[in-house]
Amino acid sequence: MTITAAVSGASGYAGGEVLRLLANHPDVEIGAITAHSSAGSRLGELQPHLLPLADRVIVETTTDNLAGHDVVFLALPHGASAEVAAALPDSTLVIDAGADHRLEDPEAWFRFYRSEHAGTWPYGLPELPLGESGGAGRKQREKLLGARRIAVPGCYPTSALLALTPGFAAGLLEPDDVVIVSASGTSGAGKSVKAHLLGSEVMGSMSPYGVGGGHRHTPEIEQGLSNAAGEPVTVSFTPTLAPMSRGILTTATARVKADVGVASLRAAWESAYGDEQFVHVLPSGQWPATQMVIGSNNAVIQLAFDEHAGRVIVSSAIDNLTKGTAGGAIQSMNIALGLNEGAGLNQLGVAP
Amino acid sequence: MTITAAVSGASGYAGGEVLRLLANHPDVEIGAITAHSSAGSRLGELQPHLLPLADRVIVETTTDNLAGHDVVFLALPHGASAEVAAALPDSTLVIDAGADHRLEDPEAWFRFYRSEHAGTWPYGLPELPLGESGGAGRKQREKLLGARRIAVPGCYPTSALLALTPGFAAGLLEPDDVVIVSASGTSGAGKSVKAHLLGSEVMGSMSPYGVGGGHRHTPEIEQGLSNAAGEPVTVSFTPTLAPMSRGILTTATARVKADVGVASLRAAWESAYGDEQFVHVLPSGQWPATQMVIGSNNAVIQLAFDEHAGRVIVSSAIDNLTKGTAGGAIQSMNIALGLNEGAGLNQLGVAP
Amino acid sequence: MTITAAVSGASGYAGGEVLRLLANHPDVEIGAITAHSSAGSRLGELQPHLLPLADRVIVETTTDNLAGHDVVFLALPHGASAEVAAALPDSTLVIDAGADHRLEDPEAWFRFYRSEHAGTWPYGLPELPLGESGGAGRKQREKLLGARRIAVPGCYPTSALLALTPGFAAGLLEPDDVVIVSASGTSGAGKSVKAHLLGSEVMGSMSPYGVGGGHRHTPEIEQGLSNAAGEPVTVSFTPTLAPMSRGILTTATARVKADVGVASLRAAWESAYGDEQFVHVLPSGQWPATQMVIGSNNAVIQLAFDEHAGRVIVSSAIDNLTKGTAGGAIQSMNIALGLNEGAGLNQLGVAP
Amino acid sequence: MTITAAVSGASGYAGGEVLRLLANHPDVEIGAITAHSSAGSRLGELQPHLLPLADRVIVETTTDNLAGHDVVFLALPHGASAEVAAALPDSTLVIDAGADHRLEDPEAWFRFYRSEHAGTWPYGLPELPLGESGGAGRKQREKLLGARRIAVPGCYPTSALLALTPGFAAGLLEPDDVVIVSASGTSGAGKSVKAHLLGSEVMGSMSPYGVGGGHRHTPEIEQGLSNAAGEPVTVSFTPTLAPMSRGILTTATARVKADVGVASLRAAWESAYGDEQFVHVLPSGQWPATQMVIGSNNAVIQLAFDEHAGRVIVSSAIDNLTKGTAGGAIQSMNIALGLNEGAGLNQLGVAP
Repeated sequence: MTITAAVSGASGYAGGEVLRLLANHPDVEIGAITAHSSAGSRLGELQPHLLPLADRVIVETTTDNLAGHDVVFLALPHGASAEVAAALPDSTLVIDAGADHRLEDPEAWFRFYRSEHAGTWPYGLPELPLGESGGAGRKQREKLLGARRIAVPGCYPTSALLALTPGFAAGLLEPDDVVIVSASGTSGAGKSVKAHLLGSEVMGSMSPYGVGGGHRHTPEIEQGLSNAAGEPVTVSFTPTLAPMSRGILTTATARVKADVGVASLRAAWESAYGDEQFVHVLPSGQWPATQMVIGSNNAVIQLAFDEHAGRVIVSSAIDNLTKGTAGGAIQSMNIALGLNEGAGLNQLGVAP
Repeated sequence: MTITAAVSGASGYAGGEVLRLLANHPDVEIGAITAHSSAGSRLGELQPHLLPLADRVIVETTTDNLAGHDVVFLALPHGASAEVAAALPDSTLVIDAGADHRLEDPEAWFRFYRSEHAGTWPYGLPELPLGESGGAGRKQREKLLGARRIAVPGCYPTSALLALTPGFAAGLLEPDDVVIVSASGTSGAGKSVKAHLLGSEVMGSMSPYGVGGGHRHTPEIEQGLSNAAGEPVTVSFTPTLAPMSRGILTTATARVKADVGVASLRAAWESAYGDEQFVHVLPSGQWPATQMVIGSNNAVIQLAFDEHAGRVIVSSAIDNLTKGTAGGAIQSMNIALGLNEGAGLNQLGVAP
Repeated sequence: MTITAAVSGASGYAGGEVLRLLANHPDVEIGAITAHSSAGSRLGELQPHLLPLADRVIVETTTDNLAGHDVVFLALPHGASAEVAAALPDSTLVIDAGADHRLEDPEAWFRFYRSEHAGTWPYGLPELPLGESGGAGRKQREKLLGARRIAVPGCYPTSALLALTPGFAAGLLEPDDVVIVSASGTSGAGKSVKAHLLGSEVMGSMSPYGVGGGHRHTPEIEQGLSNAAGEPVTVSFTPTLAPMSRGILTTATARVKADVGVASLRAAWESAYGDEQFVHVLPSGQWPATQMVIGSNNAVIQLAFDEHAGRVIVSSAIDNLTKGTAGGAIQSMNIALGLNEGAGLNQLGVAP
Repeated sequence: MTITAAVSGASGYAGGEVLRLLANHPDVEIGAITAHSSAGSRLGELQPHLLPLADRVIVETTTDNLAGHDVVFLALPHGASAEVAAALPDSTLVIDAGADHRLEDPEAWFRFYRSEHAGTWPYGLPELPLGESGGAGRKQREKLLGARRIAVPGCYPTSALLALTPGFAAGLLEPDDVVIVSASGTSGAGKSVKAHLLGSEVMGSMSPYGVGGGHRHTPEIEQGLSNAAGEPVTVSFTPTLAPMSRGILTTATARVKADVGVASLRAAWESAYGDEQFVHVLPSGQWPATQMVIGSNNAVIQLAFDEHAGRVIVSSAIDNLTKGTAGGAIQSMNIALGLNEGAGLNQLGVAP
């Protein structure tokens, strides 16, 4: 069986990454490649690394152009997905790499995005433990089976939720004082041409942004952790921009409940991910580095219990464009369509 | 008056930075330049950027070679300073860039360094508010006046203490749950030739280390914050290695006491640093980037109050080798000797 | 048919890249993974990005351990290959990523390597035009069919020969004044732990090395160009170290023969590579960037005729570890064994 | 005596670097700080590293605002300098960091810039040997004494001319086949917000541009070499963009005349620069790295004679914004006004 896939937003980094991975997916044929301002261009002008696709012509992002595919990937600006999705048949699998359909709480959406919420779609993070309330030992994966609308998680939430959810799902962590600091490569900001994203500005420099709870990924992280915990979890989240193109390193810490020791902490994480293909708890003593996962759909995780501070510190590394966006999207597609979950995602991290 | 200065450990990054700054100090003449394994070499072989000093010959780090100078800078491995200092006259100003004399608590020293403590010297962070117990409105600067032994703070503690001390000195923050995550350039690890510090390993990659309370700078940070708070402060500190040569970006957060608002927070930081030459609280809305301070003795700071999480998040950026090591050392020297505090330290950040 | 492959030198960058690619090769099963000083370690300790192979144990590089495989990849220090190869049966395909068997002229070998030459093996650069003397329109590929000993080209020669050989094979260029300047990522220097390869030294810095004809790849480049030209070609080659982990950008220039115009130049390159899967002459106006090919076996090439200077300038970009080493090795293996030439090499460049 | 200086184009990288250096110039008081689209902003918004100047307000670039200063620095787009300069008194020292007044040949100007030539000003590269025709042993410095209009060289020409002029001035090199390949940091492209200059695009990547003789610095390089040689010199020049913010590494090669040996080559360079404060021929065996000179006005140079290829290869490293632009401008100002030539330029390279 060959699946046909259309990719919108193909001129950007997320769209380019979807195409890079689909080009090697054994079950997928790439159909329409769409964008807006660059419609009419050869793909090779905008994504010169996609050499076998270089002569494909980008067409306008219209319902007509997207129609007639089994899967449509949306890598559009926030707020643009709902309308496009509504015009596609229910039988088409629509996978939205944007934020529009991730949040369950319309008020949280309005507070951070200042527009009407477009509705919640199944959340495309298959490895997420559902927690006690969701069913002990069960994962988000089951909610993607047969789905025809999927919301791809944000890149920071992917790294933060993979880092902390096992502890909350197992009831080991206090819900009221989570601190997360993440460092992201610049591709997370997209291909938008802004002065502070110039190479001259970012090379050799680190800087924070969205500090103080203002980053739009904060409610998404809280939502995931709260669902796993079965109670509201409060998060202080600070993203920083690092001098690298790809990768997110997240340092996530939470206070550990009384009488919880290092053994039960370690057991929670290892049992959560022991059977996972893409999420790896590293052996004791080895810590994540983003280089381990660049270009791959893998996440690597390590944790330590700081008894003095009463906190668990979890470190996770992903590639923001792969596991954090396009890889997660394709993995979710595979699950929804009943394909091999890892199909097209076997590339390993490009290191050094 | 011309001061003569000897610099030991001149082959490493800290020693090189001391020399880079001293070369332009209006009141200092550089005397002996010493090291161990590279003794006998031209300085230009090891520090080729120090062009006017290129033909100076490195001599062995011995008491004889260091004697007879007004100031001796020690940039030696941990544990080597005490013996050297003991052999120098009390009238010689000895400035130790190593850790040996920073900690006040011999037990903390032993726990992290596994050796006998060599005694505490005045701590070379002039801008540090002493807090209520130390005298409201007073600074560490006064303890350096006329000093003849000075312990230069670690680079992480410099960035963390500048970030958080104003809040603790003003009694605005809870002492029991500080979380600090710092990203450092690779020069912080010194010129030691280790595989994980190779360019191929660090470029394009971020990774944590010393996670879980194990980094030796943790007790030093706790000591400074506790002194300012007048009560024990507990810190979870996670350092990360960033793909850049220089710079530390620290994200420091603490829970804010009840009834404390953003205005009193901001006032505490602005009043702490309003008169300082090198420590700058940025205007609202502008956030630190390490690029602002590379090669300079400046620190830049910004803060935000996350009411939802009940935390203040403070961001600080310094150059680990300048304000974090050699610049702080020279600033302390200037104070101790009654020179202009900023002498030799007028260079601005090299950006972009 | 499944091929079994052993990889020696598995702790280094070249060996790691061979394993990264083999892990996704549809026809290959990875057998022995060998090294010397790290024998006994889990592969995951040394190559943490190779997650599915992390628990494999590295064994000592001995003939016994390498025996019994269909293919043996040698990623050993120069001078170590001959002995290992001699101990393996003639029927085993031995692919040497080292320099030992690349040069045809024993004197050139001795001049640059100061040891006895170990003999010449077929040169693993399939796309290399053989030139008039070798047969117009024919390629090096044919010499690899059925081969059981293959010498993988050096990374710089791969980029330089792909850049210039079409012009020499077509008789369009003067042989006596070629100038080549290449910029390489630091992984080209291997995982050897040397001070000048530290991240602190290479980030934000460029530097030349082996200037003045001393680099060992110079005779290899001259050999390839001379074979294509049918007369001796003289090359001035200067390598430089660039602040990136991977990638080579080569700028290669040669004087153009009288009466040769831009059309015939362009035609020579396009006809040389028009049918190639991995070597791409970009559309006019688009220039190579190493980012286009990182992690992939692709090479991208563009040329311009500077009539004022009478020179053609050819720019080529490859990934030094992939097309420049491990990818070229596997491509050659595929040809030698009659597999699909592109098997296991379908990954596209990881950009941005 | 205090000199008053106005700086136009203060929002860009060149203008910012002029300000960074002037802020520490002992004889200069900074007057008007002007720009166009950012007029009305605090300087700290655009140049946050210039902390002591942060509260200065940028004013519009008008003759009124620039008038009344002893020196006016122009860091404006090409074509904008002539009109501004014409409106300033002849007694005002006008230093143009743009290209408008560098070329002596109006036809060359028109060919590369497509506008009418605005006239030639004394060329601000003091160390340039004038060659036999200009007077053996004499330097460009003498032409700047008392000058009131100065054209600052381009950054690439600064690095290329410092590299090759000694050989041409001494009559040792063939004039008809110079090949120059330079790698520049991204700040050389200015703060213009273009997609190919985004951090995500340039980090980890190298690419050429302006290939084939099209770069506007080509005629400027040829002009300087021809003047030194006393005959027309032909240059093939290829610039490349490197993943670093600052620095130019130039590899410049020329064929050596018959019977010229390595000793006379070395002697030519050493005698040309032996007395210079900012241009350093490194000891044999040590090669330039851009890190040696970042943030400083220094240039470092090394050469090798490749007898096999009959070429001298000269490597030079400068900081494109300092020696290549703002430092050279201030050095020229110092000469023109009779100040100490090195005033305000004593900062050493910021390494590592």
